[in-house]
Amino acid sequence: MCSNLCQALLLSSSNCHGYSMLQFAKEEICTFLKQKNVAEIIFLPYAQNNYDGYTAKVKEVIEPWGFKVSGAHTSTDPINLLVNSKAIFVGGGNTFLLLKRLYDLNILPLIRKRVEEGNLLYIGSSAGTNVATRSIHTTNDMPIIYPPTFDAIGLVPFNINPHYIDSVSETHKGETRDQRIGEYMEMNHASPVVGLREGSILRINGSALSITGVAGAVLFRK
Amino acid sequence: MCSNLCQALLLSSSNCHGYSMLQFAKEEICTFLKQKNVAEIIFLPYAQNNYDGYTAKVKEVIEPWGFKVSGAHTSTDPINLLVNSKAIFVGGGNTFLLLKRLYDLNILPLIRKRVEEGNLLYIGSSAGTNVATRSIHTTNDMPIIYPPTFDAIGLVPFNINPHYIDSVSETHKGETRDQRIGEYMEMNHASPVVGLREGSILRINGSALSITGVAGAVLFRK
Repeated sequence: MCSNLCQALLLSSSNCHGYSMLQFAKEEICTFLKQKNVAEIIFLPYAQNNYDGYTAKVKEVIEPWGFKVSGAHTSTDPINLLVNSKAIFVGGGNTFLLLKRLYDLNILPLIRKRVEEGNLLYIGSSAGTNVATRSIHTTNDMPIIYPPTFDAIGLVPFNINPHYIDSVSETHKGETRDQRIGEYMEMNHASPVVGLREGSILRINGSALSITGVAGAVLFRK
Repeated sequence: MCSNLCQALLLSSSNCHGYSMLQFAKEEICTFLKQKNVAEIIFLPYAQNNYDGYTAKVKEVIEPWGFKVSGAHTSTDPINLLVNSKAIFVGGGNTFLLLKRLYDLNILPLIRKRVEEGNLLYIGSSAGTNVATRSIHTTNDMPIIYPPTFDAIGLVPFNINPHYIDSVSETHKGETRDQRIGEYMEMNHASPVVGLREGSILRINGSALSITGVAGAVLFRK
């Protein structure tokens, strides 16, 4: 799906045990943005409801690294804003809510087009990572709102399970993460699933993929 | 939503730490079925893919209690089967898959109608409990398939979170169960959410609701 020009950085989560917010990804994010001389990041806070508060938190972390952060919601014309921006950061929260809002705002196809053309750098975290992939079928989130489809931006032709965890409770009988991903694989989907542990990052550089960060990933395939 | 004639038994799960399958609910299920002299239960295995295997497991547990168990999938005419049955058991698995199949088979409205008329006893477990409520918005399951809506049978005018757990990990940064339910409540839904711990049962007797079983429940409201 992703073109040779596509550049994305998909984080499992913004928080990782032992680090303050986004700190484990600081070097990756800075290197990623500096390659295209990015001065300003547009932050998409749509996975949560408190747009101002969420944007302020991300601003506080990233601006000291040398990049201006602006909330997409502060623009009256988000389409025009995205046409003129060089990098976006799609924050985490609820994946169903995020996907629905990206469709409601009609900005999903534009993001896909501009990233595929190599004109927009994409950074996603958690829900922001889920919506970058082919679909949100492997989110952990609760389906708090009904989106028009589970199909997403599709920068990669596979699914990601963020916050991937392989530990199993001795007493809780709900499905384990591996069982849940197995249920998805059973549905005759030929595409694999990448379980990204908290603290890991999938770097997309055209057709070249690499896992960086501090925690690693697990690949599920039929 | 539920009429005065509605009779249902909604289990958080079929498995509960310290008990073999369904054992914690044996007395409740037997009393529930005997009140209407039920001899045969129709088991709906649609939340999983191995219909025969799943039905065999449930049969092995319930038939020694004195009730015949038949898989709904073995009938070529499930609508006719349900019109002539006195009790169903909707098993757990994946809630999205179950809801989609209930719509695909066109049996969801029939189940609602017959339970509301007092002609069909409803037993549900986990996913089978989720689909009995107003919607599947508070399932824990992975959205492995896209259903035509999240609206469900609606025997009760609220949501249930089965396998409810209040413990919090020190190191994992994914949302806690309470945060997830909180995200749902934020979406301006006026209806409450009942968190059913594994081992707990919601008994619906017309408009009278009671919690039984071995683990209790938590009520979330705005």
